[in-house]
Amino acid sequence: MVVEVGSAVDWPAVFAERTARMQPSQIRGFLKLLGDPEIISFAGGIPDPALFPVEPITDAANTILADPSLRNHALQYGPSEGYGPLREWIVGHMARRGVPCATGNVVITTGSQQALDLIARVLIDAGDLVLTTAPSYLGAIQALTIYGPRWGTLDLDRPDAKATWRRATAAYLVPEFSNPDGTTLSLTDRHRLLDLATQGVTVVIEDAAYEALRFEGNHLPALQGLDIARCGSIEDSRVLYAGTFSKTIAPGLRVGWIVAPGAVVEKIVLALQAAELHSSMLDQMIVHQVVAAGFDAQVARLLPVYRQRRDAMLAALDTHMPAGVTWERPAGGMFVWLTLPEGMDSLALLADSLANDKVIFVPGTSFFPDGSGHRYLRLNYTRSDEATIEEGIARLGRAIERMMEVQE
Amino acid sequence: MVVEVGSAVDWPAVFAERTARMQPSQIRGFLKLLGDPEIISFAGGIPDPALFPVEPITDAANTILADPSLRNHALQYGPSEGYGPLREWIVGHMARRGVPCATGNVVITTGSQQALDLIARVLIDAGDLVLTTAPSYLGAIQALTIYGPRWGTLDLDRPDAKATWRRATAAYLVPEFSNPDGTTLSLTDRHRLLDLATQGVTVVIEDAAYEALRFEGNHLPALQGLDIARCGSIEDSRVLYAGTFSKTIAPGLRVGWIVAPGAVVEKIVLALQAAELHSSMLDQMIVHQVVAAGFDAQVARLLPVYRQRRDAMLAALDTHMPAGVTWERPAGGMFVWLTLPEGMDSLALLADSLANDKVIFVPGTSFFPDGSGHRYLRLNYTRSDEATIEEGIARLGRAIERMMEVQE
Repeated sequence: MVVEVGSAVDWPAVFAERTARMQPSQIRGFLKLLGDPEIISFAGGIPDPALFPVEPITDAANTILADPSLRNHALQYGPSEGYGPLREWIVGHMARRGVPCATGNVVITTGSQQALDLIARVLIDAGDLVLTTAPSYLGAIQALTIYGPRWGTLDLDRPDAKATWRRATAAYLVPEFSNPDGTTLSLTDRHRLLDLATQGVTVVIEDAAYEALRFEGNHLPALQGLDIARCGSIEDSRVLYAGTFSKTIAPGLRVGWIVAPGAVVEKIVLALQAAELHSSMLDQMIVHQVVAAGFDAQVARLLPVYRQRRDAMLAALDTHMPAGVTWERPAGGMFVWLTLPEGMDSLALLADSLANDKVIFVPGTSFFPDGSGHRYLRLNYTRSDEATIEEGIARLGRAIERMMEVQE
Repeated sequence: MVVEVGSAVDWPAVFAERTARMQPSQIRGFLKLLGDPEIISFAGGIPDPALFPVEPITDAANTILADPSLRNHALQYGPSEGYGPLREWIVGHMARRGVPCATGNVVITTGSQQALDLIARVLIDAGDLVLTTAPSYLGAIQALTIYGPRWGTLDLDRPDAKATWRRATAAYLVPEFSNPDGTTLSLTDRHRLLDLATQGVTVVIEDAAYEALRFEGNHLPALQGLDIARCGSIEDSRVLYAGTFSKTIAPGLRVGWIVAPGAVVEKIVLALQAAELHSSMLDQMIVHQVVAAGFDAQVARLLPVYRQRRDAMLAALDTHMPAGVTWERPAGGMFVWLTLPEGMDSLALLADSLANDKVIFVPGTSFFPDGSGHRYLRLNYTRSDEATIEEGIARLGRAIERMMEVQE
């Protein structure tokens, strides 16, 4: 066939090799369905907009835009490492979490998703072994996959754990109320994990997205804080910490952060500069005013509401789930992780429950780098009120029962 | 030497290969000096904060935060491709520029710096040949360098231009009032460039950052519009367009955009999702309200002020520059590009002029991928008033004369 010069471009042939690894997220697709008021959605790690601190945010925006000196900061080019006063606030916040660090250890990012991208950017070469839990956060899988790692399973109990960690460049996990399965790493296991990481040169990427959302029990020390206690200084630590205000303040204001040794911060800042110069100054300054005036009070508003919704979901699951479906009780965070009976496929269930019951969730396969996990599904309980949760879980129970009958 | 387990990490050995290519920008370093009121800065492509549309921005922020439905959009997770009404406004804006496209061809980015990063991310493999003008925008050099291209010179008059373009994956340029040298590509040369690009599969990355800032003469058609006229549809075009509101509205609100064929948009959106989920929703919505209410009026505020400053700088250069220093008159944009006498080094000049005359600029070497360009320097005229420009250029003239005497 003669191809005319100047005719349509064969883009797949032009794209970079990494572009073939960019695959649509099932979650983001479902977000588009949220506009349909008849659909009950347990998809997305989405905060309830009724709990956004609207008045503090509005006050902050007004204060910033009315004051010429603050305003010129907010509207002008700013430093790639982030807004100074917010970085200082984070130093205090991290100290309360047991992580002693300085302003020079903090970089502000466009949400913690960018934190993960930048960490991967400076750390991961194609072919590097990266360990993560199975299941793991799909956004992290997406962010890191761009850089072409080989994935291995982060499982402290595997007999070959030592050998695996010695070969691993990095290990990624969500130690508190993990996305998607709600589990929390015990103190003993935190030390076991650091033992494995420090036998070689494995960097630990600690994603603390849900850390503030603890409903019961005591806060556990951050892996980064434990590592600093062991090695003496953040400058000698191998843990990189990613935080976010998306789950506590508001995700539309894209503000997250990284805490890391100075040698890593230096490269992260250069990577951020090349990626977008800097994050939104207005968002950073609004978030700073809001958290400086009352971060704890805002978290205290969220906790009882989200705890009740978790309890409502657990109660509804008890009532409506057929035998053979199992789940654990999360001590915080945003998710319950369901295991379906052997042989059942949550993606097929989703197609059915969306069409017939108008209830959606995220199928388990999104959370496994190797695309396994068909038996699982993730339910979010923070975005819906208790009556909606009860109704949605009843619908889901019917859908699962129907599918079990077909399979019998 | 025995290295204790758990002792300091050898980060350079741990980092990815690409991290060695991340080098500090001279411009960003100088931005930190802007706090010193005695220093006159011609560094940075920085708009005058006195010209930010403060009232429209404040009105927009208030409107958005006071309306529950707008507010929930601004503070909640949003679509990776960007805020719908802003994408629609950009379709109209591009049509006025002679680029027929649809909403599906537009992606909102965190400034045009992110546009360049995302385009490079989906396009460039290590070792790919990328052509750019010499000099070229240093932020583009930084963004693309992460992905490891080989750099070639975009020079339409080179005898080997045809052979070079046939091997090139992409060509990057700023066709209007280029950063750093202020030049504009003529209509004839735009067609010659597209002739070269369409003989093979070279993608053209058109950076239109300064396009709106034309002080005199007629607007020229965008390369993307010309290519669409030649090939019939944006879907068949090989030009990717990067725009920004940083130079017309406010750079602290990080809002830029990409216009591209649907097949490219699809991958860009996935890359953006992995990089940061989405840009600041509040910034996008504020910018949308401001430009919908009066983009042209805002540009009309900027033009006379920036034109007078350009004229003031050209007049001051005529008065204060010693023989042997040359420059061209830019028809728009933010910069005058100075050529120093043979053998002079603008980096040495900067050290001297900063210490003795308290005037700064960006040395030419920042703008050449190969680190050449010692004879050149870039002067910004948009951030200083006319009296400051006169004083700063007088100081610079003295510094150059002093260095010429030393070299004699």
